[in-house]
Amino acid sequence: MLNELKEEVYHANLDLADYGLVLFTFGNVSGFDHGKGWIVIKPSGMDYRRMKPRDMVVVDLEGNVVEGRLRPSTDTPTHLELYKAFPEIGGIAHSHSTYATAWAQAGKNIPILGTTHADHFSQPVPCTAVMTPEVVDGDYERETGRTIVSTFNDINYLHVPGVLVRNHGPFTWGKDPKEAVYNSVILEELTRMACITLAINPETTMNRALIRKHYERKHGKDAYYGQ
Amino acid sequence: MLNELKEEVYHANLDLADYGLVLFTFGNVSGFDHGKGWIVIKPSGMDYRRMKPRDMVVVDLEGNVVEGRLRPSTDTPTHLELYKAFPEIGGIAHSHSTYATAWAQAGKNIPILGTTHADHFSQPVPCTAVMTPEVVDGDYERETGRTIVSTFNDINYLHVPGVLVRNHGPFTWGKDPKEAVYNSVILEELTRMACITLAINPETTMNRALIRKHYERKHGKDAYYGQ
Amino acid sequence: MLNELKEEVYHANLDLADYGLVLFTFGNVSGFDHGKGWIVIKPSGMDYRRMKPRDMVVVDLEGNVVEGRLRPSTDTPTHLELYKAFPEIGGIAHSHSTYATAWAQAGKNIPILGTTHADHFSQPVPCTAVMTPEVVDGDYERETGRTIVSTFNDINYLHVPGVLVRNHGPFTWGKDPKEAVYNSVILEELTRMACITLAINPETTMNRALIRKHYERKHGKDAYYGQ
Amino acid sequence: MLNELKEEVYHANLDLADYGLVLFTFGNVSGFDHGKGWIVIKPSGMDYRRMKPRDMVVVDLEGNVVEGRLRPSTDTPTHLELYKAFPEIGGIAHSHSTYATAWAQAGKNIPILGTTHADHFSQPVPCTAVMTPEVVDGDYERETGRTIVSTFNDINYLHVPGVLVRNHGPFTWGKDPKEAVYNSVILEELTRMACITLAINPETTMNRALIRKHYERKHGKDAYYGQ
Repeated sequence: MLNELKEEVYHANLDLADYGLVLFTFGNVSGFDHGKGWIVIKPSGMDYRRMKPRDMVVVDLEGNVVEGRLRPSTDTPTHLELYKAFPEIGGIAHSHSTYATAWAQAGKNIPILGTTHADHFSQPVPCTAVMTPEVVDGDYERETGRTIVSTFNDINYLHVPGVLVRNHGPFTWGKDPKEAVYNSVILEELTRMACITLAINPETTMNRALIRKHYERKHGKDAYYGQ
Repeated sequence: MLNELKEEVYHANLDLADYGLVLFTFGNVSGFDHGKGWIVIKPSGMDYRRMKPRDMVVVDLEGNVVEGRLRPSTDTPTHLELYKAFPEIGGIAHSHSTYATAWAQAGKNIPILGTTHADHFSQPVPCTAVMTPEVVDGDYERETGRTIVSTFNDINYLHVPGVLVRNHGPFTWGKDPKEAVYNSVILEELTRMACITLAINPETTMNRALIRKHYERKHGKDAYYGQ
Repeated sequence: MLNELKEEVYHANLDLADYGLVLFTFGNVSGFDHGKGWIVIKPSGMDYRRMKPRDMVVVDLEGNVVEGRLRPSTDTPTHLELYKAFPEIGGIAHSHSTYATAWAQAGKNIPILGTTHADHFSQPVPCTAVMTPEVVDGDYERETGRTIVSTFNDINYLHVPGVLVRNHGPFTWGKDPKEAVYNSVILEELTRMACITLAINPETTMNRALIRKHYERKHGKDAYYGQ
Repeated sequence: MLNELKEEVYHANLDLADYGLVLFTFGNVSGFDHGKGWIVIKPSGMDYRRMKPRDMVVVDLEGNVVEGRLRPSTDTPTHLELYKAFPEIGGIAHSHSTYATAWAQAGKNIPILGTTHADHFSQPVPCTAVMTPEVVDGDYERETGRTIVSTFNDINYLHVPGVLVRNHGPFTWGKDPKEAVYNSVILEELTRMACITLAINPETTMNRALIRKHYERKHGKDAYYGQ
């Protein structure tokens, strides 16, 4: 069942580990089958080096396990909220990569300071609001998803394919699991650069024309980067 | 004698080196056999790459070598104090990992700034008090253990499985040697993240409900992380 | 056509990836054939691990593709401006290496703080001026080249073989593609050192005699470093 | 001639590269034969991966090449001054390791903040004074050695086996080339830790009893670390 997507999700999870974005069993990647309306996701607390494509768990949009002998990632309800609210995405990655997690802990948006950011995210990467104790003590993982979605009320999720969950870490997405992981790698690097930049010059800025130019040359209707 | 525990201790010591937490002969891991009341520990000043499982030294709780042709780690008396005071642990790791050691040198507790910390340590990681010259010039390594133990007068050692020894470095523990090393890796990473976070926003905080939620979902009686 | 230069450019591009100066398809290296007046450059958006020497694109100084089935790097017009203005160079490298890019984002020149810098760059590494929205919205990549060239009105490009393009990243050059990449590696390392140095002592200085001595012993007419 | 020492010096130079303390042809290690009064040193500007033990150059204490078809390191006169002034050393290493070089650029001594430092250096690691333009323009490399030696007028070179040359980088020494490189690795790590520590708590201190205890347990007459 969904064997091709299981392979994709499996390899994208391994990429998360290979790019150094997770330790031990941290993190998870999922993929969405738009036809069935089901997601495929990493099992909870599973060692990246021991798992197999067939260990990936199939879950419907209500969170019921459709197939799989293992429990899905505890963060599954967060993924589900994102797939329901962001209809054009096909993959989601969650890591505890060092710099993006550290910035999420700082509780701030990541400003656009350079073209590495602007090539991939058209605006600052937002950090979610503090979740109230009531929400945390409720349906926590689902509420995490809802908090992300409400952060994007005024932001186009296709132009800003990631977010920092406050005091937690990054979630990124894309058209498929592989692109979601790609955006996690980019987010980690642009965050690391932003840390260094602000240590050198806390007052630095980037003008809007340059931000738009870089985003558009890769993603606009007249994009001319690549083959 | 205790061959299985020697293998465990040997491999946990190699893990310490493989995870990049020690240079040269720095650091040491031990394991405790609750039945015999003996510990197995790395020999002093031994190259990680040359030692064999049979080089591990067996020591009783008074510090007498029960078996082994090599001298046990100079830090053995510190380990002994911890095994005597913390009856439910079965392994201890000591490293000079860069960030945790640097923070120990700073002489401060590590505040909880994110879920990576809260998933593993339910409170700030404490830093021990300054040892007086009299204590340093006395039975130094044993006094180091006593200083750690007194730091945990009001802290549950099972919920906070590690400590920073001031101006020295981290000690972590767990149910076995492998878990002790796991906690050393986690401590190093959460310390590194805390350094970066505080450089971005020295005023950041994390609310208590979120700390409790994350610790409980992994370690509480209704834990639901993992298989 | 230009097969030897294609091999050189191909290997210099791989070096850029092997030295950890680029992620994914970021960055590009080119080489110049002074006889033909043509450049050889990496194709746009190409995966470093999949490309072959024959994928390198040959372009004339007006930017016309002379040979190659792939589109040349989007940064090709920047390279062309540099080859036209700096007649003695034979290779150019552009990366998004972490520290040099972060410093470019900070919008400052890199001061000379030590001999690692002075051994390779006789003066501070300049950062270009902000490009106006009109220039960014015009012939952007060509204007980037012109902005670099005007930065070198009063700087000898042979003694300072690199620049930070503001909010973007570093460009370096040399007598051939290999030397251009060498200078990118050096620039990354001296920038990293400068970040750390200024964190320790923001007021530090280096006297001019020592700067001149180190530059001259490697590059002056009486150079005595090497064989 | 001195084939055994050539092998030692050759391997110690490779270690310098393998531990990540140098880029390209940077750095050099030498060894001293107390019987002959000759040193063996890396050739100038030589690629670490291409050199052979037989490429090592033999030089007498006046700097004359006794044997070798290659030119010795440009830093040879610095090594000679150290061997003449510090009679009990048998090896010297010079690197451009990132943190030690950055701290040398900052022009400050490295304070003792923890036991990693105190285990190896009994006092702060000194940074040399600024060299005057006259001295720089004179017999520069020999003057570098003299500046180091005068820095040790009141410091025991056996208890503090290394120094930061201001605006340049570290030199370390030991009983043989291997120990000199060992001390370079330690110096790099303790410097990195000191950078991080001071970012967390610029006011931190370490008491003298603990410094003395750690240095003595490894190096004192009643040392009890190791086998």
